[in-house]
Amino acid sequence: MSGDTSSRKVKRFSESDRGSDFDAATQKALEEIDVCQNEIDNINEKASEEILKVEQKYNQLRKPFFDKRNHIISNIPNFWITAIMNHPDLSALLDDSEEDCLHHLTKLEVEEFEDIKSGYWIKFYFEENPYFENAVITKEYHLGCATPTSESTQIIWKEGCTLGQISETSRGGRKRRHEPSKTFFGWFNDNIDPYTDDIAEVIKDDLWLNPLQYYLVPDVEGDGENNGMEQDDGSSSSDIEETGDDDENKSASQRGRSA
Amino acid sequence: MSGDTSSRKVKRFSESDRGSDFDAATQKALEEIDVCQNEIDNINEKASEEILKVEQKYNQLRKPFFDKRNHIISNIPNFWITAIMNHPDLSALLDDSEEDCLHHLTKLEVEEFEDIKSGYWIKFYFEENPYFENAVITKEYHLGCATPTSESTQIIWKEGCTLGQISETSRGGRKRRHEPSKTFFGWFNDNIDPYTDDIAEVIKDDLWLNPLQYYLVPDVEGDGENNGMEQDDGSSSSDIEETGDDDENKSASQRGRSA
Repeated sequence: MSGDTSSRKVKRFSESDRGSDFDAATQKALEEIDVCQNEIDNINEKASEEILKVEQKYNQLRKPFFDKRNHIISNIPNFWITAIMNHPDLSALLDDSEEDCLHHLTKLEVEEFEDIKSGYWIKFYFEENPYFENAVITKEYHLGCATPTSESTQIIWKEGCTLGQISETSRGGRKRRHEPSKTFFGWFNDNIDPYTDDIAEVIKDDLWLNPLQYYLVPDVEGDGENNGMEQDDGSSSSDIEETGDDDENKSASQRGRSA
Repeated sequence: MSGDTSSRKVKRFSESDRGSDFDAATQKALEEIDVCQNEIDNINEKASEEILKVEQKYNQLRKPFFDKRNHIISNIPNFWITAIMNHPDLSALLDDSEEDCLHHLTKLEVEEFEDIKSGYWIKFYFEENPYFENAVITKEYHLGCATPTSESTQIIWKEGCTLGQISETSRGGRKRRHEPSKTFFGWFNDNIDPYTDDIAEVIKDDLWLNPLQYYLVPDVEGDGENNGMEQDDGSSSSDIEETGDDDENKSASQRGRSA
């Protein structure tokens, strides 16, 4: 591998840092540890690069099947709103008007940036609808920088049809499981703290990965303890054994976490 | 790649599952989606296998440097207890007797099982000490099965020196940041719910990965918001720029998470 190390910011541990606190033998040992640590860091960097290449390769291999799946889904009326309403974390977001609006959602697409690490898009395609003018609204996550950011398409609402606005007085008036003050469009428009955006992760790593399980199986278990947003294993409370083994429903990157 | 699919439990979506709910066209489309989904699952499985091989390769490359680092560390008195006491999450665990006991900790080792995914050991090596007889105590995590389990060495305490036992009455009497009812040996002996064992993850993915940063830099920021166990980026509140760029301190698997 040709590791590009030009961008690395390795500062050697040196006497000038804290050397005065230690005797000569300890100081020497600490410097030797630092040399080891830098070697380990170099290996970590090469490992990351190689894993990234593998992920990119398999993303390319998955793409045609995701495209084909979306083509088939386009023949099933209300596929996405059904899957969303059956998803324990996502259904909790939607108020009645949003649910009505999302009946016009014809296509959902999640795509990682080519270098994977730096971000992804979630694209929502809509047929003509009473709520807004846009045919596609996109939420875009930039994760490559120190402070992750997100952007979302400005929605051109039709007069009197703006959704996702919760006034201060109505906040908390509706009980939701996870994000008491968020609605779907509230989430879509909120780009304040993408680092803690659980909704985007649920869409990307769960709904998008296997929407069929949610289309088929309603959220019959209600508020059971396995319904939480915190789940980290890609599984859901739904009876996903209907369509495949649990482990098969994880993305490569999710499995990587348990490595 | 020779993908071993013999252990896969792919159940095809079939009419007998829920077919009666759908018209013929939808039923056909759902079956086509299921075929796509199975293809995607196959690709995911191959990706996981390939990533595992890369991780294994780099684990082998890292090993000699971790061994060398441990050899050097053995020449620095109180290296591990200093690093632990400087770690915001770990120091909060130790009561005074445990802190005294861990001054006899001469070596720490973390090693993943060869297939990485199925688990890891944390080994604590002790010199002769007033507290217990064991020279090595090991905590072992088995993550490969549906329900993760852990095991720990039975500690042979010297008479009157048992640590890590908190009576019900003393629980909560000592303010700790994260695990109010846990001490170090309480954690070590507790194998009830390894799935939520944050301490093991901190030792494996943070302390072990770069102990030098904790040895060098005391926890000066106290209870600041960046001190939490919840941090997922491998960084700490400590001034790790002393020894390297933040990103350089992450393991390959940690970086994989942000992919």
